[in-house]
Amino acid sequence: MPDTYKETNSELTSKELLQRYLQEQIPISSAMGIQIEEASCEKIVLSAPLQANINHKKTVFGGSLHAATTLACWSLIFLNLKDFEKPTEIVIVSSEIKYLLPVTADFKAECALPEQTEWHRFQHILRKKGKARIPLTAHIAQDNQLAVKFQGIFAAIIR
Amino acid sequence: MPDTYKETNSELTSKELLQRYLQEQIPISSAMGIQIEEASCEKIVLSAPLQANINHKKTVFGGSLHAATTLACWSLIFLNLKDFEKPTEIVIVSSEIKYLLPVTADFKAECALPEQTEWHRFQHILRKKGKARIPLTAHIAQDNQLAVKFQGIFAAIIR
Repeated sequence: MPDTYKETNSELTSKELLQRYLQEQIPISSAMGIQIEEASCEKIVLSAPLQANINHKKTVFGGSLHAATTLACWSLIFLNLKDFEKPTEIVIVSSEIKYLLPVTADFKAECALPEQTEWHRFQHILRKKGKARIPLTAHIAQDNQLAVKFQGIFAAIIR
Repeated sequence: MPDTYKETNSELTSKELLQRYLQEQIPISSAMGIQIEEASCEKIVLSAPLQANINHKKTVFGGSLHAATTLACWSLIFLNLKDFEKPTEIVIVSSEIKYLLPVTADFKAECALPEQTEWHRFQHILRKKGKARIPLTAHIAQDNQLAVKFQGIFAAIIR
């Protein structure tokens, strides 16, 4: 994140900061109707409407489910690293997704911080080597059933 | 695909049929600016502009790269099954994607039909059991270098 961006937006809550950042920097997230429902360093919840993401079967397009889970994970690292001692860049390296059930309504994608030891290891390597990778998982549930299971490997690089 | 759709659009080329189908049925593909460049039962090439799919690093958002490769694979099965003896539905079961290089310009996603034996096995099981799965790969190249490697498992079900 550019330093100027952080300074200009220092009065915003995490939720507002993230909403504005996604809207301004990743326009397809607006086309998808992505809304930040919950944003902390422990957990991100994004929502999106069926209608903007509908497919030929009147369910949510698989590409939109993947994009929403990717953004949830990316947002979690973004919030955790925004006050890191040096400016960083976050990129996705690879991902796997399983579509277990069709998503037939507006949906939420959730990503939670992994175990503290995993996160500390990531930060330690980032400090020491200037870059580090971390696996993050996200999911989409519908009627209390797991509909989408996502795992991505993300990399942070000190600029 | 509904039979009425096929009949109404019987005069269109594969490319026109696919472009219209994606636009009408999967609206996020229009937001992404997806264009059908090449459409045959052997190969699909889709293109999309950087601008509609840009991210905070001024490269293409990983979610858009995944959506484009997913659509390329889906389109290939769609064209191959549109004249199948019975109406079918096509869904994605799972996928893996590797982001090898950042994509910094307008891009093309390509998917080619797998070996004939693999395709025949898929059709045989579909006829026999009413449903079948097939792995398909797609890629995105930039300056003759592989930038994105995608593999998805797709399922077809006789309705």
